[in-house]
Amino acid sequence: MASSVISDFSSSPTARLLPFRCTVPIGAFQFQPSVSIPLTPLHLNASRSTLSRCCSSSAVTAVATNTDTLAKVIDGKLVSKQIKDEVAGEVAGMKEAIGVVPGLAVILVGSRKDSQTYVRNKKKACEAVGIKSYEVNLPEDSTDEEVIKHILEFNNDPSVHGILVQLPLPRHMNEENILNAVNIEKDVDGFHPLNIGRLAMQGRDPLFVPCTPKGCMELLYRHGVEIKGKRAVVIGRSNIVGMPAALLLQKANATVSIVHSHTKIPEEVTRQADIVISAAGVANLVRGGWIKPGAVVIDVGINPVDDAENPRGYRLVGDVCYEEACTVASAITPVPGGVGPMTIAMLLSNTLESAKRIHDFK
Amino acid sequence: MASSVISDFSSSPTARLLPFRCTVPIGAFQFQPSVSIPLTPLHLNASRSTLSRCCSSSAVTAVATNTDTLAKVIDGKLVSKQIKDEVAGEVAGMKEAIGVVPGLAVILVGSRKDSQTYVRNKKKACEAVGIKSYEVNLPEDSTDEEVIKHILEFNNDPSVHGILVQLPLPRHMNEENILNAVNIEKDVDGFHPLNIGRLAMQGRDPLFVPCTPKGCMELLYRHGVEIKGKRAVVIGRSNIVGMPAALLLQKANATVSIVHSHTKIPEEVTRQADIVISAAGVANLVRGGWIKPGAVVIDVGINPVDDAENPRGYRLVGDVCYEEACTVASAITPVPGGVGPMTIAMLLSNTLESAKRIHDFK
Repeated sequence: MASSVISDFSSSPTARLLPFRCTVPIGAFQFQPSVSIPLTPLHLNASRSTLSRCCSSSAVTAVATNTDTLAKVIDGKLVSKQIKDEVAGEVAGMKEAIGVVPGLAVILVGSRKDSQTYVRNKKKACEAVGIKSYEVNLPEDSTDEEVIKHILEFNNDPSVHGILVQLPLPRHMNEENILNAVNIEKDVDGFHPLNIGRLAMQGRDPLFVPCTPKGCMELLYRHGVEIKGKRAVVIGRSNIVGMPAALLLQKANATVSIVHSHTKIPEEVTRQADIVISAAGVANLVRGGWIKPGAVVIDVGINPVDDAENPRGYRLVGDVCYEEACTVASAITPVPGGVGPMTIAMLLSNTLESAKRIHDFK
Repeated sequence: MASSVISDFSSSPTARLLPFRCTVPIGAFQFQPSVSIPLTPLHLNASRSTLSRCCSSSAVTAVATNTDTLAKVIDGKLVSKQIKDEVAGEVAGMKEAIGVVPGLAVILVGSRKDSQTYVRNKKKACEAVGIKSYEVNLPEDSTDEEVIKHILEFNNDPSVHGILVQLPLPRHMNEENILNAVNIEKDVDGFHPLNIGRLAMQGRDPLFVPCTPKGCMELLYRHGVEIKGKRAVVIGRSNIVGMPAALLLQKANATVSIVHSHTKIPEEVTRQADIVISAAGVANLVRGGWIKPGAVVIDVGINPVDDAENPRGYRLVGDVCYEEACTVASAITPVPGGVGPMTIAMLLSNTLESAKRIHDFK
């Protein structure tokens, strides 16, 4: 999966999405919300341990102590576990019925520590559900041709049903050319323009839906959130999250608006939405006042902010000022533990789906 | 170019876009604006001869007689003529410099009168700017394979730079399969999902932009309308107009919302827009009250409505109640004479662009 900057809100290449993509250093964002956000710690009780500390206003703290007014937490860990269990069941059923085990191949170029961690996590997740994983590690100074050679081998390997090129690739490589070499029938990331085109068009369906936006939709569906006829705002328009999320909401018959770095009064547009998906990559961008009372908020961002109290020197927060938002919204995803765990679950789901399609297994 | 229903606002297959696509019968729309629209004629002076008659309220008439308050008319005939002149100049220059004449091939299956008219118009327009046109007429009962055979011949013909399959095809044919046979490098309609995907993605560009939405954007650009940072609403989300128009506005950094048949209060959303592109295919859907004062309105719809006074028994009106809108908007396209003439001009422009790309001619 690509780990490039998720939207044009942030021009820093260090602002990334999702825990297993996130890299430090910290505090390099060029786009900052206009309101400064003090990082004074709040001593929250256990039931609100997922609350981040985006502001310390006493008014917000007062409200937050009344649990009746708090938004329902959309638990991505729980849903992703349900999905993984479902995938594991289907993988076992497929193996028993036709003797086929879904396979996911990951190509890693170079030795970035974060990329190595992501690849390791994917491998573990595959093993846990019975998907066979294949891995190729290439040195940093490999050529495009060497990477493409391995892609073509996986394209032709009938035991591989999904192919991932771990991003970012080393700077000397042509990412577009390399990704285009992946057979669209094995493009489990769903980033191929042909997939995106089919996602945008009425009457067409993509072979694969990109994992993170698919995870956002799954959270909405599994929490019984009505989408049809609702106003939805997506904050951020990246190729990997914001744009496909908007297309998915549109396909589900929401009235969709996209907020981005050129939007003049983003809070005004956002406040009109019954459903907000934020994928801006900017810590605490979305304040409580941005949110329509009763709205459902899906926070895709995972941003490192300085935190001297944390042994790591930083902590991870979402795009949404959680503490404020959870007093306004009717439901919200925490960070971490919201959208993050869904992405890898959707990757497993896409790999299974690919194997079923290739083997015509219903 | 496809002539299928332009949006899900109308479920009638007879509601089509643009003069050279429009077919009768009339009055078959299932979706109607909630306010009934009396068709009492207004006796308008010559300077407002393009005004349609979507309502007869005396208040509107009174305002309409004060020309100071009327919106600037965005004259599509004039702009399309400028574009055709520019294309003609470039075609002549290309021929002189490298001896190449751009070629457009049109495949017509069956004997629908409207389709024959469109094909004739395209041929004439090509001739007028020096583009060579090629035409294949196949009988109604042709097979998919016969149509595809001709497409493949044109794909391989170096004198052909653009290929159009006139739609609609006879019902027994598989439109998607047939259109997919067109080489993407000659897909001057720009409807291929790969083109749409590239249109949706940041950092990618489509080989061709679909003609009608491209025409809408050209009207905005040539009238100096600022798009970046503005709120834009597209009404209708068809594959051929609404959806690509939204993607183009988004690429131009507007904050875009899409209104469609499931939008609950479409007038409320539309009223927030500085730029409105309506491609709903519903006569007089957009009333004056839907429009933000000073907004720019591009009306893509061309809808037949009963008119006993007209020798043909009907007349053509847009999606927008022009008379009301032109007292609120700052600029507006008339119907006919607005977006209509732009589509064919953009088709010529796309064909020229294709020839330049194929022959690497700057």
